[in-house]
Amino acid sequence: MTQIVAPTHPFDAAVELSPELGAPGVFLGHTSPAYANMVGPFGGITAATLLRAVLQHPERLGDPLSLTVNFAGPIADGGFEIAARPTRTNRSTQHWNIELTQDGVVTTTATAVFGNRRETWASTEIAAPTAPTVDDVAAQGFPDFIAWARNYEMRFVTGAIPDPEAGGQPDSTTTLWVRDNPPRPLDFPALTSLCDVFYPRAFLRLGRYLPAGTVSLTVYFHADATLLAAQADDAVLGTARAQRFGKGYFDQTGEVWGRDGALLATTHQLVYFKD
Amino acid sequence: MTQIVAPTHPFDAAVELSPELGAPGVFLGHTSPAYANMVGPFGGITAATLLRAVLQHPERLGDPLSLTVNFAGPIADGGFEIAARPTRTNRSTQHWNIELTQDGVVTTTATAVFGNRRETWASTEIAAPTAPTVDDVAAQGFPDFIAWARNYEMRFVTGAIPDPEAGGQPDSTTTLWVRDNPPRPLDFPALTSLCDVFYPRAFLRLGRYLPAGTVSLTVYFHADATLLAAQADDAVLGTARAQRFGKGYFDQTGEVWGRDGALLATTHQLVYFKD
Repeated sequence: MTQIVAPTHPFDAAVELSPELGAPGVFLGHTSPAYANMVGPFGGITAATLLRAVLQHPERLGDPLSLTVNFAGPIADGGFEIAARPTRTNRSTQHWNIELTQDGVVTTTATAVFGNRRETWASTEIAAPTAPTVDDVAAQGFPDFIAWARNYEMRFVTGAIPDPEAGGQPDSTTTLWVRDNPPRPLDFPALTSLCDVFYPRAFLRLGRYLPAGTVSLTVYFHADATLLAAQADDAVLGTARAQRFGKGYFDQTGEVWGRDGALLATTHQLVYFKD
Repeated sequence: MTQIVAPTHPFDAAVELSPELGAPGVFLGHTSPAYANMVGPFGGITAATLLRAVLQHPERLGDPLSLTVNFAGPIADGGFEIAARPTRTNRSTQHWNIELTQDGVVTTTATAVFGNRRETWASTEIAAPTAPTVDDVAAQGFPDFIAWARNYEMRFVTGAIPDPEAGGQPDSTTTLWVRDNPPRPLDFPALTSLCDVFYPRAFLRLGRYLPAGTVSLTVYFHADATLLAAQADDAVLGTARAQRFGKGYFDQTGEVWGRDGALLATTHQLVYFKD
């Protein structure tokens, strides 16, 4: 009799954490070559891993409502430790402090708010970007040297990675259909990672690559677990743009849309760049 | 001979902190009745006070780039303690962890990124909202029982506090000219506080007051100290809107504009509400 074991999805392998014995709230992880960026890991996978530390913490209450990750320094290839600490637990919300360290040096900090949701009046006030259906947009990768991007199927509606010959663009908006590659059911860590899938907006405005990196990333989760599960492994529609570039930094504001016009997350970041 | 001493501005009195002797990075403060909200202090003054703890920390490097404040629990009238700790100091950026406690209980947590800016290519990609000049818009207050709002001169261009008889509105946007009352030169704490000056967007959509409170607030500072100083004590143009309401929470995205179309800050928050 042959036992068939489903292979672990590269995403799950990358965010895997094991509890450190005798140290409650401390988890051990390891960087994944599959999600490597130019320097260190893709920020999205780091953010997802920090969220996962809370998700698998025994004291965790409810689902994620917000997450802010500060990228304080480079993460070296290899092992790391994540300490997740509930700073305050209320009746229906819980606040978290999370730190990723390597050899005792802080590389990444985060805070998160978790909570139990309840039914209320609901309204999505903004509109999803106009886009052809996913099957009508060709899949298109990043340059091959960006390892992490190979784990995403990306179909750019507008604002694909710039062709240096096209020159700078007046608008920094990128809109794309995107999902894990191979496809994987959407959950909170995967959605978190997708919020960082947009390459630096300065590339698009200036029509060239330049040193850039996220300094601080915030995700507001509008989807609960039920709505996420309903997305299955379908592509989501992501859109992001910068609002202001100047003196070495720019901001980015983005949205991730799911089936039937459901706004799954809104996301913001501040990005360092060097021109 | 009469000595004339300028009275302390209520804002400066509210954010005043004194270092705790023998405990580096720990500061003592006190809530200010002038900035009281329905329950506890106005979130903007709390955020400003947390930022100020870093600003007056002896190890602080550069100016604020981003700040995220998580409102974990109510702050009681009275004294509080703020502990500010640099989690990592790089060559040109510095990351901070900040906690406000009362009697050892965490009420508010924050992270901040500070840094030294340098000249780069710059571009403001979004446009300021259309508005008449400040003198062409009448000053209009909040209901008198909201103490903190008396410290701001507000001139609503659109989306003033709803008149219950007007009913709900289809759009949650508020745009207003706003400055400290009495006028006060703009600085980083004052700008931080202004980022929270927008009353809960659900009031406007539903046309009525309801329980609501910010859970997490993020500010991206686009202005450096020179640009802030150039604003003097002029009114700034603030605008904010919600993107999605549902299951007990909504998000808000906002902008603060200064003289000559300068985008001083972009700001985002996640807000709890009960309908």
